[in-house]
Amino acid sequence: MTSDLSLSLPQGFRAAALAAGIKPSGRTDLSGVVADRDCAWAFAGTRSTTAAACVIRNRDLYASGAPVRALLVNAGNANAATGERGAADNADMAGAFGSVLGVSEAAVLTASTGIIGHLLPMDRVLGGIEHLPDELSAEAAPFAAAIMTTDTHPKTAHATLRTGARIVGTAKGSGMIHPDMATMFAFAFTDARVDQDALRAAFPGIVARTFNAVTVDGDTSTNDMTAVLASGQAGEVDLGEFLSALEGVMRDLARQIAADGEGATKLLTVRVTGARTEAEALTAARTCCVSPLLKSAVHGNDPNWGRVIMAVGRSGAAVNVSGMRVSVQGEPVFAGGPLAYDAAAVSGRMKAPEVVFDVHLGVGDAAGEAWGCDLSAEYVSINAEYTT
Amino acid sequence: MTSDLSLSLPQGFRAAALAAGIKPSGRTDLSGVVADRDCAWAFAGTRSTTAAACVIRNRDLYASGAPVRALLVNAGNANAATGERGAADNADMAGAFGSVLGVSEAAVLTASTGIIGHLLPMDRVLGGIEHLPDELSAEAAPFAAAIMTTDTHPKTAHATLRTGARIVGTAKGSGMIHPDMATMFAFAFTDARVDQDALRAAFPGIVARTFNAVTVDGDTSTNDMTAVLASGQAGEVDLGEFLSALEGVMRDLARQIAADGEGATKLLTVRVTGARTEAEALTAARTCCVSPLLKSAVHGNDPNWGRVIMAVGRSGAAVNVSGMRVSVQGEPVFAGGPLAYDAAAVSGRMKAPEVVFDVHLGVGDAAGEAWGCDLSAEYVSINAEYTT
Repeated sequence: MTSDLSLSLPQGFRAAALAAGIKPSGRTDLSGVVADRDCAWAFAGTRSTTAAACVIRNRDLYASGAPVRALLVNAGNANAATGERGAADNADMAGAFGSVLGVSEAAVLTASTGIIGHLLPMDRVLGGIEHLPDELSAEAAPFAAAIMTTDTHPKTAHATLRTGARIVGTAKGSGMIHPDMATMFAFAFTDARVDQDALRAAFPGIVARTFNAVTVDGDTSTNDMTAVLASGQAGEVDLGEFLSALEGVMRDLARQIAADGEGATKLLTVRVTGARTEAEALTAARTCCVSPLLKSAVHGNDPNWGRVIMAVGRSGAAVNVSGMRVSVQGEPVFAGGPLAYDAAAVSGRMKAPEVVFDVHLGVGDAAGEAWGCDLSAEYVSINAEYTT
Repeated sequence: MTSDLSLSLPQGFRAAALAAGIKPSGRTDLSGVVADRDCAWAFAGTRSTTAAACVIRNRDLYASGAPVRALLVNAGNANAATGERGAADNADMAGAFGSVLGVSEAAVLTASTGIIGHLLPMDRVLGGIEHLPDELSAEAAPFAAAIMTTDTHPKTAHATLRTGARIVGTAKGSGMIHPDMATMFAFAFTDARVDQDALRAAFPGIVARTFNAVTVDGDTSTNDMTAVLASGQAGEVDLGEFLSALEGVMRDLARQIAADGEGATKLLTVRVTGARTEAEALTAARTCCVSPLLKSAVHGNDPNWGRVIMAVGRSGAAVNVSGMRVSVQGEPVFAGGPLAYDAAAVSGRMKAPEVVFDVHLGVGDAAGEAWGCDLSAEYVSINAEYTT
């Protein structure tokens, strides 16, 4: 779980970023990734019924099955709940970037992140797009930085396959993180040649075990999306090796997002075993990670495992309480009933960058893992004064 | 929404409370309500799969259909996740109270609230039960106070029917409040004579529109329950009038619980109209009330209505975004797209004890209302150091 800012993109990709003036802070807020040739791709977008214009448009492009050539991202404005005007602005963004690149509008994916309910400053967006091609390079870092909102640092992860083909992933996300399909945003680029149908078939499972297993606050964004683009320039690879490496990259990014949750001081990991199904294991783990009471206890280094019992109970996952076991930082605290343990010693071990709960449900053989973060007073202050 | 501490109980009921030493603070923590004769009753308990011993036992008693005579409550210890020993302790509590009252164990409901995962100090509980009969009186306030945990004040509500029959309700709850059946705790007592079958048939709907429409933190307790006991001593009443009055009492208590949420500085009310069904209206309203982002915005008097769009989208309720409308404190801010409004003025109007969002989903005629509270730094500090 390390973010390498010296990464270069895989063969066939270049990226650019600049400050278009969308964010009042003057930080970079407009960025794009361009492929030299048509890319096979997979995509997942939020299941929110109030999804943003960019998610709706990408979903339509995805359904067409046609290849893509570029991705355009703006931060500072979500272009969500902006009506027909917002949808038109989104298409205009894609068309303008396609135009300067010499590709069709339909070959350009878009992604917007930031405040909901404000129209995009289209003069600045279109002005910025004209200058994006001047900034193109093989560096991943400027792109990873320009897609951030309340993130405290850019998030990247990568893998190299046996053939030398590479996967480079970048993600952003800090608040409104409880993805219901994918998180806002995770993008992966690879020069491996992979079959688009095989990639798309495997993608939902990978998303379920990575980004959909993350939660910062239980609030599902209108703009969540994840996409992987494959240029194919590094040639054939073993599909199993590729999918495993892709899942590793996405898992790394997912953990980085959880650890950098708004106001977070530590990563919360909940590993569930003994579940009836993987889906129930993931649900139980994620319900623990979203619990404000458990998150507060983790913040205060309080080994209050009763809140794990509560969260598992509310998750709806099948459980046999008399066969249930809970450990905190490796220390068994519950096994069908309370166990004696040294609370002060366990509290001391919770003063760590990562706090791990192991939970056995006692009803089957399935397992799942989810990630979140502690809840701090800082989360409230970050979110009490966002717009005004 | 006022809590009257001078209330007397309806005819046929007496209550008692004392400090048995379960809470380290020395506050009253053991209490009971006793009826002079057999009571018709209705009950709802948490849907949590890790429900506490008291909920499981009351549910069994409920299924038997037999009348009850008494309710015994302890605060400071939830007797949840305590295994077979916890179940035996719970039955012993009921048996001991029945014994001093001269009624059967099966005529005594029990309710425990407090920390999860600790065995009850049975010597203190049993010692206290012996002395409870000495404290019996017609006053409601000592009982309402003794069932509290992190509540800042006792919660009562009442109604008087045309015949003079009365309904007196009491509730507690401040954290771990996201009832999935009922909240921890709400009890109502009436001297009206009501048919038990009719009462039980109407009860789930009343609970859905009152306690199940409340959320403080999205965390469903292991011990949630609500019950209504009818002594019948004031004679026959009009069933429709009675049920309407009961719903009014429960709604009042539900709002009191939301307003007194852990760390809360104000009540958050979300009224949804234009929904496809009442259930979807309630789900959309409650998803808004549980959103940490919306709760933080309400805390900071930030009219960030985009977070309402987000929460409705994540709720899964059917919505037509282009026909959707949102108002904050009566000010229209969204109607299929952003509206111009004076943000500073609306922010000023949010500095009030209650902040109301009106949300029209644009797909039907059903309505529903839910209640929550703002999220403050105080919530975190209350819950970061609960056990250690």
